[in-house]
Amino acid sequence: MPRTRVHNLFISLDGYAAGDHVALDAPIGDAGRLFAGFDGRFIHGIGGVDAPVTLDRALTSTWAQGVGAEIMGRRKFGPQTGPWTDDGWQGWWDDEPPFHTPVFVMTHHPRPPIEFANGTSFHFVDGSAQEVLTVAQEAAGDLDVRLGGGPSTIRQFLDADLVDVMHVVILPIVLGRGVSPWEGLTGVEDRFTVESVASPSGRIHQFWNRKV
Amino acid sequence: MPRTRVHNLFISLDGYAAGDHVALDAPIGDAGRLFAGFDGRFIHGIGGVDAPVTLDRALTSTWAQGVGAEIMGRRKFGPQTGPWTDDGWQGWWDDEPPFHTPVFVMTHHPRPPIEFANGTSFHFVDGSAQEVLTVAQEAAGDLDVRLGGGPSTIRQFLDADLVDVMHVVILPIVLGRGVSPWEGLTGVEDRFTVESVASPSGRIHQFWNRKV
Repeated sequence: MPRTRVHNLFISLDGYAAGDHVALDAPIGDAGRLFAGFDGRFIHGIGGVDAPVTLDRALTSTWAQGVGAEIMGRRKFGPQTGPWTDDGWQGWWDDEPPFHTPVFVMTHHPRPPIEFANGTSFHFVDGSAQEVLTVAQEAAGDLDVRLGGGPSTIRQFLDADLVDVMHVVILPIVLGRGVSPWEGLTGVEDRFTVESVASPSGRIHQFWNRKV
Repeated sequence: MPRTRVHNLFISLDGYAAGDHVALDAPIGDAGRLFAGFDGRFIHGIGGVDAPVTLDRALTSTWAQGVGAEIMGRRKFGPQTGPWTDDGWQGWWDDEPPFHTPVFVMTHHPRPPIEFANGTSFHFVDGSAQEVLTVAQEAAGDLDVRLGGGPSTIRQFLDADLVDVMHVVILPIVLGRGVSPWEGLTGVEDRFTVESVASPSGRIHQFWNRKV
């Protein structure tokens, strides 16, 4: 049974996983410190990256395993709001978006899909979490769907009880403000088993698995 | 630069990674307890396995990432010793060996290769660790070579300083006897940085990265 998985959800000690004020030069708003020291190359796997294989990197590398589609919120795709304008925007990733699968961008403003030669395609869909998940699952076939964030999108899927697996990374930093995936989800942990492990880097990794 | 990697090297507290007395009904000799609780399905990745994603399983799943060839000792391929006989033996794995790459079996008794429909092929090679590694690297191309064990084979490659990355799993068990990858390698840790992390399961995972 394919699952809906969250990977590399970086959260500060005060519970924020993105900043406010997303802008062209600040893809995660004023919370860039969340990703300080994060070697994003490892989402493609530990093979082919000429750097030590650490716990953090080994766990980061599970991001793509067996994933056939991603769902993301509009703010993960771009900083714009409201109706799309003809600005040529194709996401933050230039010509090489790292997804290599269909990606479903949740927006109230549908538009034609964008396709890249590397297998990534962006599809713009309006609907509830369940509706968008159904579309993504059809695209993923036998593979899992990754819920790529941002935190508001993850919160929406948690609220609808649609998340099966979450890899959370708690960072030893305090942001003071930002966007929290936990807001309004008091007691959500009751629906999961949670395993915690401390990394030598100071990060804490958690594996949330939905109880069956 | 492709690397030579060891994954899921399970070792007892007294340093043994396999048992004596390998036999048809005992692939790792009398040390079967090393793999108790090990869900081998996860070597294929966390996608597609309908079981919780734990730290142990996430780390196990890095086994295949970016690997283009494996090297194994003869005892990992089968219990026989001496010249091969016409017994039809094709390894422990029936029709579905999990490797999906060329596998180089180190033996003083070369024989024709065996090919499987799933992309696995076994090649029987006689030579030093360096010689066999060179052949495996040619087969792997830009990808890494996995050194699949058993412990005597890993020891041979460590002794020749040919191992770049090792994922070691220390189990909270005492075997009393067996085959050790550490024998004769006093101080081998000086050539590596070693990161240790405790799993909630009681296992300890280590990442050995060769110093550059």
